[in-house]
Amino acid sequence: MNDASAKPAATIPAPVLIAFTAEALARCGLPEPDAGAVAATMIEADLTGVDTHGIARLAQYMPILREGRINPRPTITVAQRGPATALVDGDNGMGHLVMTFAAKLAVEIAREAGVGWVGSRRSNHAGAAGIYAAIPLAAGMIGLYGAAASANHMAPWGGAEALLGTNPIAAAIPAGEEAPVVVDIATSVSSFGVIRKHALEGRALPEGWVVDPKTGGPVTDAKAAGAGVLLPIGGHKGSGLSLIIGILGGVLNGAAFGRDVREFGGASDKGSNTGQFVVALDIARFMPPETFRAEMDRHIRDLRGSAPLPGFEAVRVPGAERRRRRDERARDGVPLSAALIKQLDEVAAMLAIAPLRTRA
Amino acid sequence: MNDASAKPAATIPAPVLIAFTAEALARCGLPEPDAGAVAATMIEADLTGVDTHGIARLAQYMPILREGRINPRPTITVAQRGPATALVDGDNGMGHLVMTFAAKLAVEIAREAGVGWVGSRRSNHAGAAGIYAAIPLAAGMIGLYGAAASANHMAPWGGAEALLGTNPIAAAIPAGEEAPVVVDIATSVSSFGVIRKHALEGRALPEGWVVDPKTGGPVTDAKAAGAGVLLPIGGHKGSGLSLIIGILGGVLNGAAFGRDVREFGGASDKGSNTGQFVVALDIARFMPPETFRAEMDRHIRDLRGSAPLPGFEAVRVPGAERRRRRDERARDGVPLSAALIKQLDEVAAMLAIAPLRTRA
Repeated sequence: MNDASAKPAATIPAPVLIAFTAEALARCGLPEPDAGAVAATMIEADLTGVDTHGIARLAQYMPILREGRINPRPTITVAQRGPATALVDGDNGMGHLVMTFAAKLAVEIAREAGVGWVGSRRSNHAGAAGIYAAIPLAAGMIGLYGAAASANHMAPWGGAEALLGTNPIAAAIPAGEEAPVVVDIATSVSSFGVIRKHALEGRALPEGWVVDPKTGGPVTDAKAAGAGVLLPIGGHKGSGLSLIIGILGGVLNGAAFGRDVREFGGASDKGSNTGQFVVALDIARFMPPETFRAEMDRHIRDLRGSAPLPGFEAVRVPGAERRRRRDERARDGVPLSAALIKQLDEVAAMLAIAPLRTRA
Repeated sequence: MNDASAKPAATIPAPVLIAFTAEALARCGLPEPDAGAVAATMIEADLTGVDTHGIARLAQYMPILREGRINPRPTITVAQRGPATALVDGDNGMGHLVMTFAAKLAVEIAREAGVGWVGSRRSNHAGAAGIYAAIPLAAGMIGLYGAAASANHMAPWGGAEALLGTNPIAAAIPAGEEAPVVVDIATSVSSFGVIRKHALEGRALPEGWVVDPKTGGPVTDAKAAGAGVLLPIGGHKGSGLSLIIGILGGVLNGAAFGRDVREFGGASDKGSNTGQFVVALDIARFMPPETFRAEMDRHIRDLRGSAPLPGFEAVRVPGAERRRRRDERARDGVPLSAALIKQLDEVAAMLAIAPLRTRA
């Protein structure tokens, strides 16, 4: 895992990371075009700043692929198709492939129908939600994405059993000169990544993040968080959101939800049967796209120019920092921690490919 | 307003409330079929337990209608139509009419296309979000609804200016024998209704509900909350959700968003130009509906049967209490507080219609 508390030990150009990742995935059995596509999608997460969902996951995917718990050579098919809908069967392939396929299909459908709603079943962990929501941006469209997460870390509101995922929802909306608005959030107050960071730094968790299922009281010892359940944003509200996203991503697509969810990377040799959905919405069916983009710019500037609360430097509109970081990292490279580089060196050794340090 | 702290002073049969409300609306200039339709939709909020968004709003709507700030005789039109999309122009009519029209159109579109996405502009406050999300249930479909609220009470995350609404999102998903899952939430931690209740009861607000825009500190005096800004659920997460819902409901439809939002019922004699969206999704395009309903029942029972946290009686699945209350109130009548009855008596007197007590 990418230890966010560690200082970056090296900054690697994105093409080097993509080539390394593609080679590793090809050694795990993916056909070269698929390996390249998954690698590009994984590194896109690093470029846009979602460090926990990019190359840091390679070491996790590797054994799952090699043991055949994810199918390295899937035949992704359209299991059902309506004028504005589709259901994609991922054949237990890498989620990145399945959801890139699904998002492109959603755009294609939306071109004809105005909106395209595409669900997936027999998919897998797909990395950063925002990446798939952002695929329709290239076509000038709005994108939405939701996933029934491949592990349950949250209880339904008032419950002690982890029957819900931190089911993420993401949206991407084009603007003109301003950065597109991109929102990518889990429905839990905190992610496990941030909790791990607290544990590493010896910091206590704030109340309201994790609760002890036996007592109902807060878990503030970050090292003990594994035995707790994560709390949703806004209490019953976030729990309701997670439930809806889980039904739309899971149940509707014949994918795993609730007690059927198998921990991603767990012992099962069946697939995770992860389900997601992606929606593309064609702005031109509602108003002239150039008018929309100008209006978005105006509103983004209004929000950004509004008075900040004391304690905040400025009002940030989601998407701006993402674009700034992507530009910076595309130019300067992606910073990796020493711990992550060590992990990737181990991956390289196991797969008998050249380590990163010999490539940069 | 319905003072939730007051004990119910009377319990009135729903048909009586609908007839009273329809008569009042007709006196405000609505054609009789429209008056009946709006009345039925308003009382549906009372029946399902959303007391703040039903007949309690009649006294608020009345002067706005009589002064022509809402058009009592709108011609609702389909301004744009795609194979799976539509944009409805509400002609500044009652939002209840506009969104009932939009939701029915979404169902009609989804029958053909699998999904129907319908936006609105020149609409108005439509009452309870869940009612429109629930309209597709009757066709066996999933419904989603979102609104760019007709007033801004929330600041963007880190901001001191109220440029965002508490933009609600609602979803309704069919089940088999179990109640449909219905989630209807604002993206703010608390509604103004609950804050008003605290003020009436002399209770302090918890920290995290309202913030003082001048200091950034919490407002805990409920009576001083009017000068504060509401906080979103999950900090930047709820702010991002509100932003996305506001753009999808407002900007995309050419409706008000951000600085363009005029307080509903404020001084302006132009319409509020409220925008909403409603989506109908046909389950049959993804799996056999009877399989889906059986799966929903199974998952709902799993969730309901799971262990509660200490301090909770049981795990509640959203929608069950709504159905229980609707059954109860349809049978026994809707409880109204003395304060609300007094307010409705004043409405009756001003409109020269028979008060509730002479009807029941």
